[in-house]
Amino acid sequence: MSSGSEFTPISTIGEFGLIDRLRGILGEPGDDDLVAGISDDAAVYRIGEGRVHIVTSDMLVEGVHFDRLTMPMEYLGTKSIAVNVSDVVAMNGMPRFATVGLGLPETVSIEQVEALYRGMRKACDAYGVALIGGDTSAAHELTIAVTVIGEASEDAVVYRSGAVPGDILCVTGDLGASYAGLRVLLDQRRALQEEGESYSPNVEDYQYVIQRHLLPTARLDIIRDWRKRGVQPHALIDLSDGLASDIQHICTQSGFGAQIHVAALPVAIETRQVADELAQDVDTFALFGGEDYELLFAAPPEDIERMDDTSFRVIGRITPEAEVVVVMPDGQSFPLHGGGFEHFRGK
Amino acid sequence: MSSGSEFTPISTIGEFGLIDRLRGILGEPGDDDLVAGISDDAAVYRIGEGRVHIVTSDMLVEGVHFDRLTMPMEYLGTKSIAVNVSDVVAMNGMPRFATVGLGLPETVSIEQVEALYRGMRKACDAYGVALIGGDTSAAHELTIAVTVIGEASEDAVVYRSGAVPGDILCVTGDLGASYAGLRVLLDQRRALQEEGESYSPNVEDYQYVIQRHLLPTARLDIIRDWRKRGVQPHALIDLSDGLASDIQHICTQSGFGAQIHVAALPVAIETRQVADELAQDVDTFALFGGEDYELLFAAPPEDIERMDDTSFRVIGRITPEAEVVVVMPDGQSFPLHGGGFEHFRGK
Repeated sequence: MSSGSEFTPISTIGEFGLIDRLRGILGEPGDDDLVAGISDDAAVYRIGEGRVHIVTSDMLVEGVHFDRLTMPMEYLGTKSIAVNVSDVVAMNGMPRFATVGLGLPETVSIEQVEALYRGMRKACDAYGVALIGGDTSAAHELTIAVTVIGEASEDAVVYRSGAVPGDILCVTGDLGASYAGLRVLLDQRRALQEEGESYSPNVEDYQYVIQRHLLPTARLDIIRDWRKRGVQPHALIDLSDGLASDIQHICTQSGFGAQIHVAALPVAIETRQVADELAQDVDTFALFGGEDYELLFAAPPEDIERMDDTSFRVIGRITPEAEVVVVMPDGQSFPLHGGGFEHFRGK
Repeated sequence: MSSGSEFTPISTIGEFGLIDRLRGILGEPGDDDLVAGISDDAAVYRIGEGRVHIVTSDMLVEGVHFDRLTMPMEYLGTKSIAVNVSDVVAMNGMPRFATVGLGLPETVSIEQVEALYRGMRKACDAYGVALIGGDTSAAHELTIAVTVIGEASEDAVVYRSGAVPGDILCVTGDLGASYAGLRVLLDQRRALQEEGESYSPNVEDYQYVIQRHLLPTARLDIIRDWRKRGVQPHALIDLSDGLASDIQHICTQSGFGAQIHVAALPVAIETRQVADELAQDVDTFALFGGEDYELLFAAPPEDIERMDDTSFRVIGRITPEAEVVVVMPDGQSFPLHGGGFEHFRGK
């Protein structure tokens, strides 16, 4: 019952390489109601009368996506729902239903699972999601697998692939804060482990960035506002891997390129402060830091004008050449080659 | 950031006890389109025009649900889809779409993940399911979280709660074979570990029971046949925890009891052979062995007559008293108190 002699580690091709290989094995699902499969933030299928459902699944694994030492259970519950809602939002869909699969090690108590579920409940209430089912199992590490199903009319769905040259590139909120928060938490965990009980973590000074990491918000408010104004972008993605990686998804799938102005990237003063303290370049946080769960979108100028201009910042534009070019504050420009956070890759 | 002083192990209340507690935290989801939530094999929500979708999520965890030493990757892929399809079938729904979340340890190769996906593809083809999305992540143990979405007209959905006194209780296929297969595999793994390379596992003599454990079949054929004949049972569940446990779900949720005749339980000759070799009672396998994924249903005599009588066996009936009574082959009877397989509980 061995599985053959070949053994190629997944790290040799990375997460995206693996997904490409698996897509080949799966082939094209021959379902007439399927509108979009494994190539966007979420899959889309028709439910009738020009309406679609949008489904997405994300798995959070202890030691990979979170650390129980720095991540309170209730926050973890809220975040596990929010990141899936964010994927539905990134298709311009409204979240409706969620299921949860929990893998629970013996070191997790009933009280902790209850805290986790209180966090999920809060997120479900905030996003109008009904948690309708799930599965619990024993496991050696805490594992949370959430599936969220959303709804939209078929012509309201926005894909990664719709950007065209001339479109303006925009992001909501600010960038790099989640990564700054992660760095602070890692520092504080190290200090806690080294100094023990005598160490008192400084949460107040870093409240904003820590919150951005532990309790990210899915930008349902943005797409609700678009719906009210009767406007929608050409292409849309949520920033989970980091701007540098996520812009590549839009460009690759649209078949065009982009020019991004680093000086225009919105960065919170608190994020800049953390970067300064660590003697690091805050632009790196903004370009490569993941898990901000803000929205990156491309839209023609006339549609941009119809949106609430306090809710986003223009950071560049879609170009005909299939390359992403970053323009630095000093005017120099260089091509960007992926570089977002990927699991499995060696550091 | 500690989580309070209380620490009550989950094992003190078991999986079902935990689910009850969590249901209290979630409350009643206030969604008008939700038909059934966390109380059946799957959740049910309206998609319009008297039609519903049926959604179910299951998590398979290495070391809990399977052992990589005795479970070939391709079979694992097929099984992970089949057990979720079985939950949709247990609502009398047709499976349509699936998403997969994979937690992959470094000890799993690209070739193994490809084998896993080939198995999923086979199951998807067999059950008419389109695999439309998912997520891969690093993990310390192989974890497979599958969500399957099915479809039905709202009045075709069969719940656990619909059984009434006078209904006949039936099961499809045969019982206890999966458990017999598991016992054989555990024996062979032990021998392999003790005797090393010199040990040659005997797969031929135990092919049937091993196959029943490694490659269970969701009984989509049964509900397709019912649909063709225009008949459906009052109550329906798939046998995943074991007959003794699953009949309790039907009785508790229907508010009635049942009488089961042990002499009528269908058992394959191969299952009986394994029980004999282990000097164990095969009726115990049939009553308490889980993971057969056969269907247990309750239907009135006139509907039973309209079904294909080669596809099921009558094993008892629904009674007015809220108690499950087992009648032994010698005519003695005793009440049954749960006892199916539950995670978390001490052995």
